[in-house]
Amino acid sequence: MNESIVYEISINSFKKGLENLISILEKAESFAETKKFPFENLLGSRLFPDQFQLTKQIQIACDTAKLCVSRISGKEAPIHDDSETNLKELKQRISSVIQYLDTYKAEDFKSAFETKISLPRWEGKYLTGFEYLTNHAIPNFYFHITTAYAILRHNGVEIGKKDYLGEMPFKK
Amino acid sequence: MNESIVYEISINSFKKGLENLISILEKAESFAETKKFPFENLLGSRLFPDQFQLTKQIQIACDTAKLCVSRISGKEAPIHDDSETNLKELKQRISSVIQYLDTYKAEDFKSAFETKISLPRWEGKYLTGFEYLTNHAIPNFYFHITTAYAILRHNGVEIGKKDYLGEMPFKK
Repeated sequence: MNESIVYEISINSFKKGLENLISILEKAESFAETKKFPFENLLGSRLFPDQFQLTKQIQIACDTAKLCVSRISGKEAPIHDDSETNLKELKQRISSVIQYLDTYKAEDFKSAFETKISLPRWEGKYLTGFEYLTNHAIPNFYFHITTAYAILRHNGVEIGKKDYLGEMPFKK
Repeated sequence: MNESIVYEISINSFKKGLENLISILEKAESFAETKKFPFENLLGSRLFPDQFQLTKQIQIACDTAKLCVSRISGKEAPIHDDSETNLKELKQRISSVIQYLDTYKAEDFKSAFETKISLPRWEGKYLTGFEYLTNHAIPNFYFHITTAYAILRHNGVEIGKKDYLGEMPFKK
C-alpha cells in the first residue's frame, strides 16, 4: 500500500502536471497565432533578467519529474540534451518524459522509505526517497510549471487555474 | 502508516511552505527598506491586470492549506476574513494557519482514503480526501506560493529557489 501512495503522489502528479503543461503551451500557441507573432518569441521570456527563460522552466520541470522517480526507484532515466528551440521539440520532450513515467509500476517504489538519495552538491548528506520526493521534487516540479504559467500569463496568454490543475478524478 | 504519509505530505508540506513564505516576505520587506519604498506598495502587484494581486495570492495559499486538512479530517478550521492590509497582518495570518496545522496528529487522517470531499461548485460529484489532497490542494498550494514568489521576483526582490524550497531534512 505504501508504494501505491508513493506512486500516486509521484507518477500521477508528475504525469498530470506535464499533460497540463502541454495544454497550456497549446493555448499559448493559439494566442501567438491570433496575435500574429511566432510562438518562439515567447520562449526567451522571463519575469526578471536573471531568471531562467520559459524554455528552461519547461526543461527543468521535465527533469525534476524524470530524475525524481529514477533516483527513488533506482531505474535508469532517459537522457535529454536541452536542445529544444521550438514548440514541437518542447512537446516531444515533455511527451517523452510522460512515456517514461508510464513505464513505472507501484512496486518500483517499494524501498522509497529506505533508499538514500544524495546529490553531489549535498556533500555526503542524504534524504530518504520519500523525503526527497516531498521536500524537494514535488515543490520544485510545481514551482517550474507555475513559473512557466506565470511567464505566459504575464505575456497575456489567456490561461486560468483550471488549465493548471487539469481535470479532477471526480466520482458520482 | 498510511495516515502518517498523509500527515507528511499535507501538514509537513503546508507548514514548511508557509514558513518559507514568511521568509520570502521578510526578504521583500528588507528590499523595500533598502529601496526606500513602503513594503505595502508590493501588495497590489500582479503579473497581468486580471490576475489576483500579491495579498490575495498569500490569502489563498493560507486557505488552501487550512481548508484542505480541515476537509480531509473533519476538524473545524479557524475563520479568516481576508482583511489584511500590511506585512504584519499577513504574517499573523500565515502564522495562525501554521499554529492550526500544529494541532494535527497523523491519526486525524485515518479516514483520508475513504472520506468524500464535495465542494458546492462540484455539483454532487466528489473526491476522496487523498485524491483531493494530491489532485487539488497540493498543486494549488504551490501554485499560489510560487505566484507570490514570481510577483516579488518580477518586482526585483532578490530571492532564489532556496528561499522557496527551504531547508532540507538532511541526514549524515
